[in-house]
Formats: sequence, C-alpha cells, structure tokens
Amino acid sequence: MLNFDFHNPTRILFGKGRIADLATTVPLAARVLVLYGGGSVKANGVLSQVQAALKGRAVQEFGGIEPNPSYETLMQAVELARRERLDFLLAVGGGSVIDGTKFVAAAVNYEGDAWDVARKWGGSIERAIPFGSVLTLPATGSEMNSGAVVTHKVKRIKQPFSSPHVFPQFSILDPTTTFTLPPRQIGNGIVDAYTHVMEQYLTYPVNAPLQDRFAEGILLTLIEEGPKALAESDNYDARANLMWCATMALNGVVGAGVPQDWSTHMIGHELTALYGLDHAQTLAIVLPAMMAARREAKRAKLLQYAARVWQLRDGDENARIDGAISRTRAFFESIGVKTRLSDYGLGAQHLPAVLEQLETRRLVRLGEHADIDLGVSRQVLEASI
Amino acid sequence: MLNFDFHNPTRILFGKGRIADLATTVPLAARVLVLYGGGSVKANGVLSQVQAALKGRAVQEFGGIEPNPSYETLMQAVELARRERLDFLLAVGGGSVIDGTKFVAAAVNYEGDAWDVARKWGGSIERAIPFGSVLTLPATGSEMNSGAVVTHKVKRIKQPFSSPHVFPQFSILDPTTTFTLPPRQIGNGIVDAYTHVMEQYLTYPVNAPLQDRFAEGILLTLIEEGPKALAESDNYDARANLMWCATMALNGVVGAGVPQDWSTHMIGHELTALYGLDHAQTLAIVLPAMMAARREAKRAKLLQYAARVWQLRDGDENARIDGAISRTRAFFESIGVKTRLSDYGLGAQHLPAVLEQLETRRLVRLGEHADIDLGVSRQVLEASI
Repeated sequence: MLNFDFHNPTRILFGKGRIADLATTVPLAARVLVLYGGGSVKANGVLSQVQAALKGRAVQEFGGIEPNPSYETLMQAVELARRERLDFLLAVGGGSVIDGTKFVAAAVNYEGDAWDVARKWGGSIERAIPFGSVLTLPATGSEMNSGAVVTHKVKRIKQPFSSPHVFPQFSILDPTTTFTLPPRQIGNGIVDAYTHVMEQYLTYPVNAPLQDRFAEGILLTLIEEGPKALAESDNYDARANLMWCATMALNGVVGAGVPQDWSTHMIGHELTALYGLDHAQTLAIVLPAMMAARREAKRAKLLQYAARVWQLRDGDENARIDGAISRTRAFFESIGVKTRLSDYGLGAQHLPAVLEQLETRRLVRLGEHADIDLGVSRQVLEASI
Repeated sequence: MLNFDFHNPTRILFGKGRIADLATTVPLAARVLVLYGGGSVKANGVLSQVQAALKGRAVQEFGGIEPNPSYETLMQAVELARRERLDFLLAVGGGSVIDGTKFVAAAVNYEGDAWDVARKWGGSIERAIPFGSVLTLPATGSEMNSGAVVTHKVKRIKQPFSSPHVFPQFSILDPTTTFTLPPRQIGNGIVDAYTHVMEQYLTYPVNAPLQDRFAEGILLTLIEEGPKALAESDNYDARANLMWCATMALNGVVGAGVPQDWSTHMIGHELTALYGLDHAQTLAIVLPAMMAARREAKRAKLLQYAARVWQLRDGDENARIDGAISRTRAFFESIGVKTRLSDYGLGAQHLPAVLEQLETRRLVRLGEHADIDLGVSRQVLEASI
C-alpha cells in the first residue's frame, strides 16, 4: 500500500425528507445565496422545499448555472455575492451546480484574476466562504469531495481544480429528488461513477486488497442497481443505492493508498470543451479504448477486474481481458450511453484539434505511470472512432 | 436503505515515517499531554519518535493507561491536565489508550461528576479538548471514530460512550509500529475488527448492497491478510492492510444506512468486566453462539455471509448457515483466539453473575430488533461454554 492522507469533513444527511434539515444545518445568521441550474429544481419542487426550510432567512437566489459550468456565468454569481455581502452558499442541483458553487466560494474573496482559482488547479486557493449542497443528480461525487471542474467558454478550456478549502460543509442526499430526472441523466450518472472508480482501481497492484474490494463493490452495485434505477424512476432503493455509490466513488475512500490514472477524464474533458459532448459520454467513449491501449501496463488489474467484476476466470488471459473490455462497453450501451465517437457524429477529422489542445495544455504525461504521451492519446482516440 | 447521517472529520496520515508529521499536525502553541499505556511504546521506540517530532514543545507525559482503561487511572490524567492547564492530548498506543484519551478530553472541562461522561453514554458531553493519536495496535477503530469504552473498576462496569466532540483531530497510522506486537494482540485485533463488521452486517436486509459489499470486503481481507500479519511480524503490507481494515471496520462507512446489532459486544463487555477476559476473547466466544441463536432472525444475512464470504452457495440452507458459523469459529481459532468460555476456565457457574449484571444495567433489549432479552442472552451464554 502507498502512504496516503485521508480527510473528508463533509457531513452527509441521507434519505427521504432530509431537505427539511436545512433549517438546522444552515447557520442562522448566514446571508445565503442559493445557486441552481436550468430550472428543473423549480419544476420538481426541490427548490420549494429548500425555500420552505429556509423561510424567514436572508436568502437570495442565482439560477442558470449550465452543465459544464462556465467561468462567465459563475462570475455573475461571484459579483452578486460580493455586492450583497453574502456569506454562505447553498448549491441545489447536480455536479455542475456544486462544482460551480465551489468556484464561487473560492472566488468571492480571491484577490487577483478569479480565473486563477481554476487555472492554477486550486493551488492558489487560500480560503473560501462556507457552503453546503442539496444533491439532485447522482454522478460526479462533488457533494463529498474537494474537487471541481469549470469551463472557460472563451478559451474553450475545461479546467479541473481542487483545494481542501472547498469541501462542502454538508450535503443533503434525498433519493426522491432524482425521481424526475430524464433517463439520459441517470445513464450518464452511472457511467460517471463507474469511471471514477475505474480511474482509481484499474492501474497496477500495490497489495491493497481492501481498496480493491471496495472498488469492486461499487462497480458490482452499479451493474446491479444502475439498470433498475434507470428502468424504474420511482424505485427508491435503486435510486438510493445509485446515489450512495456515486458519492462513495469519489470521496477519497477507494483511492486512498493506491495509484490513480485519470487519463480517461483528461482526454474526455477536451472532447467536451471542443465538441460539447456530455461528460459521461466522453468517458464511455474513451475508457474502453484506454483499457485496450493500456492492456500491458494494466494487465494484472485487468485480469482481476475480469475475474471479480465479470466472473471471467478461465481460459486465455487476453481473451479474459477482451471479454472484460467488451462487457464494460456493453454495460454502458445497455444504459443508453453510446461508446463510439462516430455515434456522436465525430470522426478522424476531429482528432487533430483534440491532440493540439492536449499539447497546448501540456497534458502529455497522463496516467498512473505518467507515460501516456500524445502518441498514446492519438492511438486511444483513433480506436474510439 | 435506512436514512442516515455520516460525518467523520478525523484526518488520517497513513504509512511508514508518518510520526514525524506530528511536527506540523500538533498546533505549535499547544500545551501537550502525551498519554500512553504500559511501556511498550518506550521499548519499541515509538515514544522516542513522538518526542523527537515534538522537540522544543511544551509536552508532558502520562503513562500507565491499562487495557480496558479505568476511570480510576484516567482521572489522574484529568487532574494532571487540569493542574497544568494542558490543552491538547496525544494518545500513543492502541484502542485502550485512545479510548482513555477520549474520556480525558471530555472530562477535563466537565462540570460535575466526571463519571457521568461515560455513565450517560456520552450524552452529557458538550465539549472536549482537542486530541490526536498515534496508533500502534490495529483493532478497535477508535482512531477514526467518536466512541470509547471505559471501565469503572470499583463498580465493575465496562461502559461505552460516544459523542461528536471526541473524534480525534488526526490519527497517524504507521504499520511499522505494529512489528513488535505480541501475536496475541494481532489475533485479538483481527477478531475485534471482524466482529465490528459483523455487528453492522449480520442483521437483516434493507436493500443496501454497497454497504454489504464493503462489509464483505473487510471480512475477506481480514481472512486473507490476517494470518499473514500474524505469521510475519515484519510483513509491511499485511500489517498495513490489517491496520486499514480495522480503521474502516468502525469509522461509520459500513454501518451507514443499515441496522446494527452490537449484542455480542454488550454481552462480551460484561465478561471482561467480571472475569477480566481480553475484549476480543469475549467477542470470539459470544459471536458464534449469537449467530446460532439468532439463526432465524438473521437467516437472509447468514445465507449471504455464507455465500459471499465462505463460498457456501449450494445445498441445504441450514447446512450452509452451520458451515458459515463453524468457519467463523475455525478462523478465530486459527489465529489463536479460543472461542469457548471453557477455554478460559469459565463454566455454567459463572453465568448467573453475567445475567445479573445485564439485568442490573438494563441491557435486556439488545440486538437489531431490540428483542434479545435475558432469556436469549442466557441461551447464548450457555451455548458458549
């Protein structure tokens, strides 16, 4: 096992009816800014529940945070918070709203160019105003971690950042808030959580069996519960299990003491930045091709994954690895997320721009061995067509 | 899944060489009391490492905290901390030292009879002075939770308590500190961690598969790594895996959103209070008998445990359950922890006192269904002889 630090101070309030707990979890004296997205939280009644719980408080609202939240939009919230001297943020939505809220929390009192908050990968963040979240979309894990991704539309950059100052103080996870989500969002959420685990699991062995069992536990549960959650919009238990899987997939537990990859995410981010694909779509496209391309470097873990997640234990090693990759792809397809660039109207002619962006952003030593250069990225992208 | 709250703010610093990090994790201005046990931390050099990391600081020491830390001993530390106005505690040792430190932390500024801190199960704790730990014995999980057990020697009571105020601020987990432990302590630690998981896993199904997979992951890892840790005192990876299993077994993760039992612990505590058995010995005695006695109430989970932990998937249900119980017993015996009261010189003549103690302490509605009355406890104890 590798040495590691683990620290996750976010309080989770999980279950039906928990939004009412905002009345006691948001500090009484706080001047609150509620941030949300495109209006689904209005349509499904979640925002009303939030307003009811905070009735009588000093609360303002900022809506319109888009998927892949943009610097340009978020700076309007920063300016509102500064102008009105708001001192507590409450994100109500999915990963994009929570990620955006992390940016706002860090930017409000940031001196200098606020884009530096993200551009420097979070390293320049020295403080943030406190915030909580009401999660409505199981996917990114942002509700219980210190990372975020924001997009600079003008620069066409999708930039991750993280800082110990941007853990949510609390997150409310009420599975009933997901009942009205469109199937596409559920499918995307399953792929996102699955890939988060794979980025921390499918590397090379360091004799850390507990982390491996936890990772496999999340994958197996997503495979078992994900299709139920997709098929039955009001299946509380399936939605609850998916929600908790997505949170546990990226709260530090499965990644503690093991190598991490994240190359699929880094290449996927550029596909979203350039061509607007959903985040999870890019992961579903890149991951199977990355598994195939890294077959040798990941051999031991690919065989473990084949055996313990897909029950492929017998026969030729390469056939087991191929089987595990094809089952991964088939699982993503089965929940409605296509796994080929061509499914989204992209082809060979779109790859040079992606590779140029990776080069410009110096993303040329990716993966757990820092050896995924532009040549490997090209190979992965070509195999993704 | 049941509704739940999860909050665990303890920072973990895991791995070789981490004791040196005390230099930056203990606040510079703190007036520190280092608490330890019987002197093994002097013999194995751990205390020297702590002293070196805190060189030049205001540090005092309090040694002699015994296994099953006593109120009587701990009050001496409370008086020292009060007298010297010490404001930060550092536990250096195993679960007993950390549990004792939690009591001291809560008692130092407690107004009224300090025993109330424990007697009222932690409910009367409104604050505690901050503390950290350097763990030297993988077992209780106290290094990353808010619970503790202390013993009132005069009253012969072993009393658990918990409070959100007694989470360690940080815990340093360096597996090399365990290299000098006697085998009995390693065996006990494995049984303790294993039983912690069982108390949260072997109840009844609430459709929470992720928690089940995590619980099984810890059990499987203990079965795989425990014997290696026992056989090879300097096997770093085996000791690291055991240490991380023991921490994860009782830090809230596997118990979130599921029913919990704890009857084995409650009965076991009385055996220790009356007859001085090691904590883990009492668990190894009570757990197999409890599994057998609760065969019907726990049937679904017993079958899942048989299938997923012991690969018993075929044949008669009762035979599978019997097989799982006997394998559990055999596992404990294989790591040197005897599983019968008679192995420790106890027999039927010792049971009335245990039952009387359970009655006096009103521990007459134990278990996940609160239906383990004195009759069931008697049956379990008789089957444990």
